[in-house]
Amino acid sequence: MCNVTAIEGGVCAATGFYADGRSAGLKKEGAKDVAFIYSDTLCEVASVFTTNKMAAAPVRHAKGVTQSNFILINAKNANAMTGEHGIRDIEAVLEQMKAKFPALHNPLMSSTGVIGVRLPQVKILSVALEFDLTCKDDKAASEAIMTTDRFSKSCAFEVTCNDGHSFRIGAMAKGAGMINPAMATMLCFITTDAAIASAQMQPILERVNRTTFNAASVDGDTSTNDTVLLFANGQSGALDLEAFEAALKQIMEFLAKEMVRDGEGATKLVTYHIRGAASDAEAEQAAKVLSNSLLVKTALYGEDPNWGRIAASIGASGVTCNEASLSIAYDDVMLFEKGRNLFDAEVEKRAAAVMKKSAFDIYCDLGVGDGYFRAFGCDLGYEYVKINADYRT
Amino acid sequence: MCNVTAIEGGVCAATGFYADGRSAGLKKEGAKDVAFIYSDTLCEVASVFTTNKMAAAPVRHAKGVTQSNFILINAKNANAMTGEHGIRDIEAVLEQMKAKFPALHNPLMSSTGVIGVRLPQVKILSVALEFDLTCKDDKAASEAIMTTDRFSKSCAFEVTCNDGHSFRIGAMAKGAGMINPAMATMLCFITTDAAIASAQMQPILERVNRTTFNAASVDGDTSTNDTVLLFANGQSGALDLEAFEAALKQIMEFLAKEMVRDGEGATKLVTYHIRGAASDAEAEQAAKVLSNSLLVKTALYGEDPNWGRIAASIGASGVTCNEASLSIAYDDVMLFEKGRNLFDAEVEKRAAAVMKKSAFDIYCDLGVGDGYFRAFGCDLGYEYVKINADYRT
Repeated sequence: MCNVTAIEGGVCAATGFYADGRSAGLKKEGAKDVAFIYSDTLCEVASVFTTNKMAAAPVRHAKGVTQSNFILINAKNANAMTGEHGIRDIEAVLEQMKAKFPALHNPLMSSTGVIGVRLPQVKILSVALEFDLTCKDDKAASEAIMTTDRFSKSCAFEVTCNDGHSFRIGAMAKGAGMINPAMATMLCFITTDAAIASAQMQPILERVNRTTFNAASVDGDTSTNDTVLLFANGQSGALDLEAFEAALKQIMEFLAKEMVRDGEGATKLVTYHIRGAASDAEAEQAAKVLSNSLLVKTALYGEDPNWGRIAASIGASGVTCNEASLSIAYDDVMLFEKGRNLFDAEVEKRAAAVMKKSAFDIYCDLGVGDGYFRAFGCDLGYEYVKINADYRT
Repeated sequence: MCNVTAIEGGVCAATGFYADGRSAGLKKEGAKDVAFIYSDTLCEVASVFTTNKMAAAPVRHAKGVTQSNFILINAKNANAMTGEHGIRDIEAVLEQMKAKFPALHNPLMSSTGVIGVRLPQVKILSVALEFDLTCKDDKAASEAIMTTDRFSKSCAFEVTCNDGHSFRIGAMAKGAGMINPAMATMLCFITTDAAIASAQMQPILERVNRTTFNAASVDGDTSTNDTVLLFANGQSGALDLEAFEAALKQIMEFLAKEMVRDGEGATKLVTYHIRGAASDAEAEQAAKVLSNSLLVKTALYGEDPNWGRIAASIGASGVTCNEASLSIAYDDVMLFEKGRNLFDAEVEKRAAAVMKKSAFDIYCDLGVGDGYFRAFGCDLGYEYVKINADYRT
């Protein structure tokens, strides 16, 4: 067994990685809005992108890249639905960056913000060309990529393998609204000094992504800009594949939960466990319908133990299920057991107490097979409406 | 061509139909909550029910029935997730009704309200046994079936055929929240004195349902109790199948729009036209994802002409589409045309003016085929959250 320890440093925790965030005037009042991550040696790259057919220019530009040592990230502008201008704008920005910083190899770009507006090249370059590539301000970088996020999200671990060697892995992410199980809509950048090749990382990243970011839902919408990018510069010389996957999972699950907890207007993090489904795929389908149901989400916000909405939502999800074999529990409070309604004043009181917590679990056993999936969701309150009714302004 | 004229009378407009609504104390403050529809001769019956696998007891009880002359309807209790008690409670209530009213043939029941609570038999029977079957108060009946509806919904038409004969058709419905394209979640009762058999009506009802109630969405949730029941007593002796289908479509489209307009917290009725899809089925899929998107719905509420959310939602819907062939217009204001962004200050001003209207159309041409579908949706505001966070209380 390897030893995994939480450390400081976020995306700068791994050897040879640098980052910073600055204000280019895209956000109001001088807030940071442009960031970079740089490695002083070339990295192997793995990635997962949105399945949205209107994928943004930065997604189309970065797709398939397996080596790079630099990424430029901006908030407030998604560079989506910008046609061929979108790609050309990225190329123009990155050409200037390469001219200024000859150490950049195959630089990438990532964007988040409003759709359908050309990339503000001049503003972005005004700060990007002044970046100090020896800066290690992971906190500033993680703040710069925020949009409606209420707090920045990052973490890092040191993994010491059995042979005494160790490597580091760190990450930063932005989330908030538009988080959806069909690829959690967000940006996440992961850096590691583990000695791992792109072809080795790619299947691991996809596997871990399915049960972490893809299991997280805020509002069921999938954006044009979803991106998870993993950079490995190999500078530690160490690798233990099993430990690498475990650490990656720990990082991505932590950040997925942080994103849901920070969902627009969210006040609760709810983990839905679907057991006893006909298959894992059906469990996933039910879990995602449940975590996206407006009626369930508003009942969570109202702290109303209205388990009937859970049952109705599962029934509507299209999966194999029936009333007589269904069971529903909130944490350890069983509400409905194999078709028997246990809901009385005492149970209601206990269930309502569970719902007052900022994080709790809902267990649904469909009783028709062995399929299992776990999804992360949140409630939906007034703030969500407020944030999204006025987003562009 | 037949002549179709709007008339008064709702579900009592057709010859031989009677209805009333009374208070059994299920709702607060003496509001009406129990209703009946009765025909003094036996009716042919056609029906469409929820696809929810947790279908409520009244749905399971009424399914497949092709002849009846009475339906008892209650609000505030869905009689869903009540197991075998649910069916037995219905049978017990209807046995007492038959004992009191020997004219009832194969009576049915329909319910809407909270899930997981046994049917309040005693309260319901206390008024149902006192019903006057010669009463023609269609207005009272349509009020009694309301839950979170802000207004009652009914309409009726007289259809005069080419041969001089005429028949009447009327309806009442309840909707508000939980309206979803996977069978608009609602109750709708239609009565006609046209001379039509159950087997003739059933395919017509299903066909019309697809483009009316099934095209209507408030929140994307599908309830356990969705019901459309069509009763035909043949007393007019008249029938023109084409005119019948046209009148039925007019009624169901009107009520579908009324339900969306009355969606919980809704302030706008938006009709989404998806053209140029790879198939009608793909157009339907895109239209439904669009009309259910939280980000689109909150942008509508905020009257923000953020067409990027429309594009992103279509891109995420899974249908064949691409940026270069997509066009988006709000009423007659083209925002994005075959990949070209037309959005400037002038277009924004005109689009914002369209969005201030209480009803408008959004046209999306995917530019990849001939598929078409039209869906009805609404915005989502603070009221939706308020209503649904506190529903049971």
